[in-house]
Amino acid sequence: MLTLYSFGPGANSLKPTLALYEKGLEFEHRLLNPAKFEHHSDWFKQINPRGQVPALADEGKVITESTVICEYLEDEHPTEVKLRPDNSYDTAMMRIWTKWVDEYFCWCVSTIGWHRLVGNMVKHLSDEEFEEKLKAIPIPEQRVKWRRAREGFPQEMLDEEMRKIGVSVRRLDDHLAENEWLAGGGYSLADICNFAIANGMEKAYSELVNAEDTPHLLRWIEQINERPAAKAMFAGVPREKMEPAKD
Amino acid sequence: MLTLYSFGPGANSLKPTLALYEKGLEFEHRLLNPAKFEHHSDWFKQINPRGQVPALADEGKVITESTVICEYLEDEHPTEVKLRPDNSYDTAMMRIWTKWVDEYFCWCVSTIGWHRLVGNMVKHLSDEEFEEKLKAIPIPEQRVKWRRAREGFPQEMLDEEMRKIGVSVRRLDDHLAENEWLAGGGYSLADICNFAIANGMEKAYSELVNAEDTPHLLRWIEQINERPAAKAMFAGVPREKMEPAKD
Repeated sequence: MLTLYSFGPGANSLKPTLALYEKGLEFEHRLLNPAKFEHHSDWFKQINPRGQVPALADEGKVITESTVICEYLEDEHPTEVKLRPDNSYDTAMMRIWTKWVDEYFCWCVSTIGWHRLVGNMVKHLSDEEFEEKLKAIPIPEQRVKWRRAREGFPQEMLDEEMRKIGVSVRRLDDHLAENEWLAGGGYSLADICNFAIANGMEKAYSELVNAEDTPHLLRWIEQINERPAAKAMFAGVPREKMEPAKD
Repeated sequence: MLTLYSFGPGANSLKPTLALYEKGLEFEHRLLNPAKFEHHSDWFKQINPRGQVPALADEGKVITESTVICEYLEDEHPTEVKLRPDNSYDTAMMRIWTKWVDEYFCWCVSTIGWHRLVGNMVKHLSDEEFEEKLKAIPIPEQRVKWRRAREGFPQEMLDEEMRKIGVSVRRLDDHLAENEWLAGGGYSLADICNFAIANGMEKAYSELVNAEDTPHLLRWIEQINERPAAKAMFAGVPREKMEPAKD
């Protein structure tokens, strides 16, 4: 039995969730609440010592890192709906896109997301309460990011991340002007991993992602949202499988 | 015919070079000289528009990104010496290690390397000559890095990168204390990609990598250096294949 631990269908958690839906694999979905710091709790750090979602448990073995989980599902279930191209060159092109999400696109969007949302999650805490929460975070860089989110990120950093978001959506739109999908002529993990970050940007970044400036990016976002797997994912995991994360 | 464009057997260029030697694949090796900015020249940017090595050309198709090239060689030549574990879980563990190199280990070592070596490469240039060189660099973040290397990186950044190098070698040594190889019980791309960065650290970072503090890391570095493929690689590409990069 597969169990996915995630924050639900958004950002990095969306990647393996959509891959599981696309492949039609049965899985139990355990949703963690980031506002309650559930990913830093002791029970979850026994599953992923780094205290990060998503994580996939497969018969007791745990796989972490969203992109690695997606490739694992392809390796382990090659005969279900295929989400990797059928030749080595196109698969390499797919991996350049998924790597780019992990090393560039995801980070700039994440910083602005933290600036807008995460800071507010911890502003009600006293300094002592906040420092107590930080102690549970195993990754030093994540503790730095929480502190910055609470104090406010330096404006220079926010400007630079917004510049990178501009570069990212331009790159996607230019490529999608010439191609229906990102790699190999078909829908693949390249699309799923970029969609995980790009979906919703027409609302959150309307000055950059809109019908005039990025029509091809919008077309592609819409196209993925229309897929039966995406609709099923957003409509919600069947209630009987949506067990609360244990505490 | 395979053609590899690289800086020679060190850092990211080492990864596909060693993979090609391990698999016993014939290839032409075109060496570029970073001190002459050959990777930013127009002829090379026609091969890789991002102006980065390594790049692999396979019958006219170009694959970039060192880790992606390594996986491509596995996908395309699965029957030669295998550098990926034979099951999905261990392959996922291998990918967590190669991803970690690309997102963490390589960056901290790279910054210190630039601080120590690259700055000197451009200090003899006048401001005008330097700015002229920068114009040929397609990636904005790379231009920022060249400027910082020439001016001197902020001490705070150097301290933080040295901290991360300490974390990295501790992580490797702890894992290698319990395991002969990094993933799946056998030699794999996890070892090749980490070796690309770790080899030589006992000289460049002797305060962190030494017989007392990291005996297991040293054992593993030595073990890879003793492999016939690594010896052949360091002994030099056969002269007839070592054509100078065209200009």
